[in-house]
Amino acid sequence: MSAAGSGGRARTRNAAAASKPGPIFVLDDHIYYLFTQIVGRRNRHIAEKLKPFGVTVPKWRVLATLYARPAVTMNQLAEHTTIDRTTLTRTLDRMVRDKLVVRRTDPSDRRSVRLELTANGEQVFGRVLPLVMEDNARSFADMRPADLAQFRNILVRIVGNLDRNYHAAKQED
Amino acid sequence: MSAAGSGGRARTRNAAAASKPGPIFVLDDHIYYLFTQIVGRRNRHIAEKLKPFGVTVPKWRVLATLYARPAVTMNQLAEHTTIDRTTLTRTLDRMVRDKLVVRRTDPSDRRSVRLELTANGEQVFGRVLPLVMEDNARSFADMRPADLAQFRNILVRIVGNLDRNYHAAKQED
Repeated sequence: MSAAGSGGRARTRNAAAASKPGPIFVLDDHIYYLFTQIVGRRNRHIAEKLKPFGVTVPKWRVLATLYARPAVTMNQLAEHTTIDRTTLTRTLDRMVRDKLVVRRTDPSDRRSVRLELTANGEQVFGRVLPLVMEDNARSFADMRPADLAQFRNILVRIVGNLDRNYHAAKQED
Repeated sequence: MSAAGSGGRARTRNAAAASKPGPIFVLDDHIYYLFTQIVGRRNRHIAEKLKPFGVTVPKWRVLATLYARPAVTMNQLAEHTTIDRTTLTRTLDRMVRDKLVVRRTDPSDRRSVRLELTANGEQVFGRVLPLVMEDNARSFADMRPADLAQFRNILVRIVGNLDRNYHAAKQED
C-alpha cells in the first residue's frame, strides 16, 4: 500500500487536535513512527524478493547474523536479529532441518549451544545478499556517501543512547 | 542485554572476512541492522514501561494511530501500525472487549468498518504518552533540534524511496 493510499498520511495534521482537550499528537512528527514505517516497508520488499529462494524475513536475519558472527549463542542471535524467541526457535528448527544451520555444543561449556551456517547456508546467503543490497541502494539512492555515513553514525549513537537508558532505568528500579 | 554483552557487537570486524571466499558483510555497516536494533530496543523499553497500564507494544501503536487518525479502516490501521494481521486482529478484539476501541460501520459503505478510540481509550493514551515521550527524549538527547529535524527529513525521504521502489518493482513484474 502506498503512503498516498493510506488516507493522506504524509501531510494531514491531526484532525483531533482542534476539537479534543487531549494532547496534540502527530504521527509523522514521531520519529519512531517513521522508523517502524521504514522497517515495515523494507520487510515487505525483502519478503517478496526472497520468496523464490524460500527465505523469509526471520530466515534472512539469521543467515546475515550467522554469516557475520559465526558461532553465536541463542541469546546473541536473538539480540542481533531482534526476533522474538518463539519465532526464532521455529525459524531455526526449519533451517536446521533444511541443512542451512547447525547447532554445536561448545566443548568448554556443555550447556551453551553455538549456531553456525553450513556451507549450503553460506551459499544461500551469498545468493540473496545482492538482492537485499539492491533494495538498500534504492532506499538511500538520493543520499551522498558522506551524508549516508553521517546518518549511520547518528543511528549508532541512538543504539548507544537506548542501551544507556535501559541500564539507567534498571538502576532506578 | 547491552551491546557490550553481545559478543563485542559494536566494534569487531567480520571475523569470517579473512578466511572465507564469500562476500564481506559487516552487520554494523548495514543500516537496516541498525534500524532493527533501534526499534527492538525501543520496543523492549515501551513494553516494560507500559506494562503497569496493561498496554503492550501493539496496543500502544493502536492507541497512538487511532488518536492521531480517528475512524481509519482496518487496512489503514495495519499500514500505520505495521502489525501483522493476526496480531492486529487479536489486539483489537482485546481492546474492544476492554472498551478502549469501538468498531463502527461506515453508513456510506456497509462493508467498511471504521475503528475509533472510546473516551476511555483516549484517557489511557493520554496517560501513557508522557512515558513514551520521555523515552524518545532520551533517545535523541544528544541531538540539537536542527539536527533532529534534518534527521527526521531523511527518514521521511527513505519512506518515500521505499514506496517508489515498491511500485517500480511491481511494474517490472
